[in-house]
Amino acid sequence: MSVVVTRIERAPAGVIDGLAKVGVATAHEAQGRSGLMHSSLRPIYGGARIAGSAVTVLMPPGDNWMMHVAIEQLREGDLLIAATTSLCEDGYFGDLLATSAKARGCRGLIIDAGVRDVRDLTAMAFPVWSRAIHAQGTVKETLGSVNVPVVCGGALVHPGDVVIADDDGVCIVPRANAVQILEQAKEREAREEAKRQRLAAGELGLDIYDMRERLASKGLTYV
Amino acid sequence: MSVVVTRIERAPAGVIDGLAKVGVATAHEAQGRSGLMHSSLRPIYGGARIAGSAVTVLMPPGDNWMMHVAIEQLREGDLLIAATTSLCEDGYFGDLLATSAKARGCRGLIIDAGVRDVRDLTAMAFPVWSRAIHAQGTVKETLGSVNVPVVCGGALVHPGDVVIADDDGVCIVPRANAVQILEQAKEREAREEAKRQRLAAGELGLDIYDMRERLASKGLTYV
Amino acid sequence: MSVVVTRIERAPAGVIDGLAKVGVATAHEAQGRSGLMHSSLRPIYGGARIAGSAVTVLMPPGDNWMMHVAIEQLREGDLLIAATTSLCEDGYFGDLLATSAKARGCRGLIIDAGVRDVRDLTAMAFPVWSRAIHAQGTVKETLGSVNVPVVCGGALVHPGDVVIADDDGVCIVPRANAVQILEQAKEREAREEAKRQRLAAGELGLDIYDMRERLASKGLTYV
Amino acid sequence: MSVVVTRIERAPAGVIDGLAKVGVATAHEAQGRSGLMHSSLRPIYGGARIAGSAVTVLMPPGDNWMMHVAIEQLREGDLLIAATTSLCEDGYFGDLLATSAKARGCRGLIIDAGVRDVRDLTAMAFPVWSRAIHAQGTVKETLGSVNVPVVCGGALVHPGDVVIADDDGVCIVPRANAVQILEQAKEREAREEAKRQRLAAGELGLDIYDMRERLASKGLTYV
Amino acid sequence: MSVVVTRIERAPAGVIDGLAKVGVATAHEAQGRSGLMHSSLRPIYGGARIAGSAVTVLMPPGDNWMMHVAIEQLREGDLLIAATTSLCEDGYFGDLLATSAKARGCRGLIIDAGVRDVRDLTAMAFPVWSRAIHAQGTVKETLGSVNVPVVCGGALVHPGDVVIADDDGVCIVPRANAVQILEQAKEREAREEAKRQRLAAGELGLDIYDMRERLASKGLTYV
Amino acid sequence: MSVVVTRIERAPAGVIDGLAKVGVATAHEAQGRSGLMHSSLRPIYGGARIAGSAVTVLMPPGDNWMMHVAIEQLREGDLLIAATTSLCEDGYFGDLLATSAKARGCRGLIIDAGVRDVRDLTAMAFPVWSRAIHAQGTVKETLGSVNVPVVCGGALVHPGDVVIADDDGVCIVPRANAVQILEQAKEREAREEAKRQRLAAGELGLDIYDMRERLASKGLTYV
Repeated sequence: MSVVVTRIERAPAGVIDGLAKVGVATAHEAQGRSGLMHSSLRPIYGGARIAGSAVTVLMPPGDNWMMHVAIEQLREGDLLIAATTSLCEDGYFGDLLATSAKARGCRGLIIDAGVRDVRDLTAMAFPVWSRAIHAQGTVKETLGSVNVPVVCGGALVHPGDVVIADDDGVCIVPRANAVQILEQAKEREAREEAKRQRLAAGELGLDIYDMRERLASKGLTYV
Repeated sequence: MSVVVTRIERAPAGVIDGLAKVGVATAHEAQGRSGLMHSSLRPIYGGARIAGSAVTVLMPPGDNWMMHVAIEQLREGDLLIAATTSLCEDGYFGDLLATSAKARGCRGLIIDAGVRDVRDLTAMAFPVWSRAIHAQGTVKETLGSVNVPVVCGGALVHPGDVVIADDDGVCIVPRANAVQILEQAKEREAREEAKRQRLAAGELGLDIYDMRERLASKGLTYV
Repeated sequence: MSVVVTRIERAPAGVIDGLAKVGVATAHEAQGRSGLMHSSLRPIYGGARIAGSAVTVLMPPGDNWMMHVAIEQLREGDLLIAATTSLCEDGYFGDLLATSAKARGCRGLIIDAGVRDVRDLTAMAFPVWSRAIHAQGTVKETLGSVNVPVVCGGALVHPGDVVIADDDGVCIVPRANAVQILEQAKEREAREEAKRQRLAAGELGLDIYDMRERLASKGLTYV
Repeated sequence: MSVVVTRIERAPAGVIDGLAKVGVATAHEAQGRSGLMHSSLRPIYGGARIAGSAVTVLMPPGDNWMMHVAIEQLREGDLLIAATTSLCEDGYFGDLLATSAKARGCRGLIIDAGVRDVRDLTAMAFPVWSRAIHAQGTVKETLGSVNVPVVCGGALVHPGDVVIADDDGVCIVPRANAVQILEQAKEREAREEAKRQRLAAGELGLDIYDMRERLASKGLTYV
Repeated sequence: MSVVVTRIERAPAGVIDGLAKVGVATAHEAQGRSGLMHSSLRPIYGGARIAGSAVTVLMPPGDNWMMHVAIEQLREGDLLIAATTSLCEDGYFGDLLATSAKARGCRGLIIDAGVRDVRDLTAMAFPVWSRAIHAQGTVKETLGSVNVPVVCGGALVHPGDVVIADDDGVCIVPRANAVQILEQAKEREAREEAKRQRLAAGELGLDIYDMRERLASKGLTYV
Repeated sequence: MSVVVTRIERAPAGVIDGLAKVGVATAHEAQGRSGLMHSSLRPIYGGARIAGSAVTVLMPPGDNWMMHVAIEQLREGDLLIAATTSLCEDGYFGDLLATSAKARGCRGLIIDAGVRDVRDLTAMAFPVWSRAIHAQGTVKETLGSVNVPVVCGGALVHPGDVVIADDDGVCIVPRANAVQILEQAKEREAREEAKRQRLAAGELGLDIYDMRERLASKGLTYV
């Protein structure tokens, strides 16, 4: 039941970095409004905008033993995605684990549970998106798994998927789609830039998007 | 059912700006501890303290079409108040809509739902108070209404009411009462300033407010 | 029923300051993973790391009268711990009460309810950990108690216990244990520092903590 | 600030009883999907389906004094609608108040807070929809208002509005619209009955509502 | 750190049974509106009204090992009070443990976590008040303690305290106060019975409790 | 993006019925404590214990159009599993849809959103597990998908998986594992029955499971 998958496929580094640049909201739209985690996962500090390859870890409530196992599987450019087998807000991760993850090139942590030592993590510039900030300690007694598919923050994550995280939240792009989604996201960005300028100049979305007729036909009435 | 009210009354600009200065807590007290929205609506960044005239918009869950309709109704000095017909945390509003709203003089957004592009909104200094930060995209299929009375964050808002928002939350002052509430709020501020100095000097509220006798008569016992 | 206990024992100042330095997570671990408040109590601003002696106050919902009574019991180096007799998010405490508490040497407030005037409190550098930020005003009609044991944020607090609070949350160290817990916490810190350096150099926790054999014996499988 | 409005208009008894019969879901649909309270208000026992004229009461947290004031305003066929000025789950209402309300012809209570003595209330067949069941007692110190407009469970309620409550929740029908909404609701019921029979016979909604073409034109693909 | 206290004092059986009869709401009022657990603890089935002596157990998240240890400490007439060291909704208890507890004379379980096999528990008439119903299984790896003071549902419970539980929730009566609280509760019941009859006959609380003058002096206005 | 998969594999009917009989808790344990949905999904009435093959539907917030599409895909013995693309509590399903689903042999609905007409559904004996009971109506404007993998209540569900639901919640057994899990579950039941009798006779789990030595070696102390 408890396995560590040691070989996972990753998306090309350039694609991952491109997805970091377009950010969560745009990538989410580009893939048809899918892949977002719940809004309950929030960054411990503002301003980080990253992407990486998912290394996943599934742990029991109140037990962070598998974190150590997962860290060995991390490579430069990875993001650690941590899920629990049941609801838990304990502080699974702190500055020591972050030091170790960082030494292996890990770019950050997404955890559907709690984190602690957030002052140190902030000072280290090691970004974390978590459901809670909680100092509650954990034990090391029960196994879990590494690099199996997990549901984290309501989103399905396969090992090697591209994970994008910024102030808007966390979005999963399936590895096989990453190249195409990046392209679509860039096109979307380009389209948006043109619209941004027209809107800034005072044009209305009602006119730019040609909405008035459709609104009227649906029955919208001005009084 | 779906209407846009195009003419609304607004409070005088000087009164609105005065209410921004006294802030949420004082205005709320000055009007008899009423008008506050729930504590679940929080600012996306700290430090903003604004007031404006309410332009209201009511939308279905997961559908932000009426945002575009509402923006046309905004004038210099307005605040957009967005409510949904049922519980929703989707990201109804982002940097494009903010660009458009700002071009029309809108001072900010209060939304009992989600918002996205918060890094851009912060950079633009466009303040938002929301129930969630969530990148989740929305559709444009179903009508709602603009400038009808709405319940937002548990508070009743009529179009043209004065909305005050700062780090303490959001407070609604009915338009017809704005002048009087501002006056009462200023008096309260003046009274508080005198007390602040006495308290800072080490005097106790127990003495300043003459509470000891009443406490004893209620049965308070020191042991 | 409503009493004010005027004499409480406090831990030595040096011990309290030592506990502030080790912080919440380490002290919590040092005392066997106990004493933490719920993760729902969060600081109104980041970066504060304090400890003090608990002066407790128990209040009815929506009524902050006893705050004034409690403030008289505060001494230099104390922390005010406020609990309510039932669930409440009202703003029991603002800048006037903070001014008064600060004048008596109080280092901060922990409240399982709401707080307001957070901009002023931040400017005064008066740290607060609360369940909510809410401007909602309260009345002064019903008694409570001061310096009785209270449950605050799910943790039992006796007057005079040492309270540690930082970005990770709030931890209670019973007064009688404070000297010993500080010593254990410092030892833990020393041990962690050595490990931090090894982890930063790329060694794995799996090896440092000698986990591989025990993991295998529990059935962990690499594939 | 604290007022009791002693004269309110009510809808005709026959209309109210008709609305009870159509129930919450149908009435809510008949008035354009508006008027529903939050799903957090639940009945203390199953099976009740009632309607009545709203007598409203607004109370501070933890203080049920105004309940006694409100009860005097109740008439045969009324429903008591209780809101609080801030979030509270205390048990504002129990078997004594229910006995008094029932003696005046009150049909039930809707409260955006807590209730207690639920075993007795069930035995009395006095239905209550509440946010919580909680024995927590309240004080009688601070005024509120009776028969003013209130926001209860997120819905705006004017005194004299028709309130419908059943296992699906609580719906408000503005008094002035009650006759028309009842008529529309009955038409809806009639239409639904015909459809129910066709669906029970195995016909599909896809065919009855002629949806296939519109689905295809939107891009739905069968694989 | 992990202890089992094998000798605890209990209140007299007659007092405990008397408190069961008065119920949660009345006992809570009789002891000055204290001792209640949060409203989030609900019975798995309606109608049970019990009291017993508290045998307490404190467990880590997701680990029910100490349940077996606690059961050995149960005697005829006890109630098991289960708390966790951090937030958890797992199903710590099911029909096998209930069978064992019942065999030792245990009257029920109060747990600030989850329970499972609720159909069987209901069929056995073994009442449980819990925060969740959840089938999630737990491990047996980490120690906790039995018969130490715990915070459960926000209430402090000492071993041997009297626990009352019914459809209104759960109330703790400290053992040393049990005789006196029972007496006060019975007096309260007697007073309430007289009032119930007057209220049922149509008299108003406003008159029975002589409230009109005090309401008027506070400023209540009828319009 | 919006697809309907028309052919799915199902587990053998006998296996499905066997899994219904063992129930959620036992099946969940038999497959290594996995597959459970969140405790927030609760049955609308007690006592139902069913299993079926998953037909999945993914819908936008506030839009139940795809329900009609999904119903056509239902066969005798199926269960409908409904997820939404973002958080929503609206009433997606009521008595008309239930009538249609039942006519096609559907055994029940699991929905991570709201349901309405619960009195009628109860009368029809059509069981539903939902996150909310809410009359809130929905629109039919935006596509979703049928028979794609979905995350529902935090659990991953593939079309054709076996879904078990009873008073303890909802558990997913992947189709390919169903035969084996049923066998393991039955073995577990048999083992439990033997233990139940010993426990009922007063033997302790401490002795039956031979726990005393291991507890002592971990440091458990009796005082």
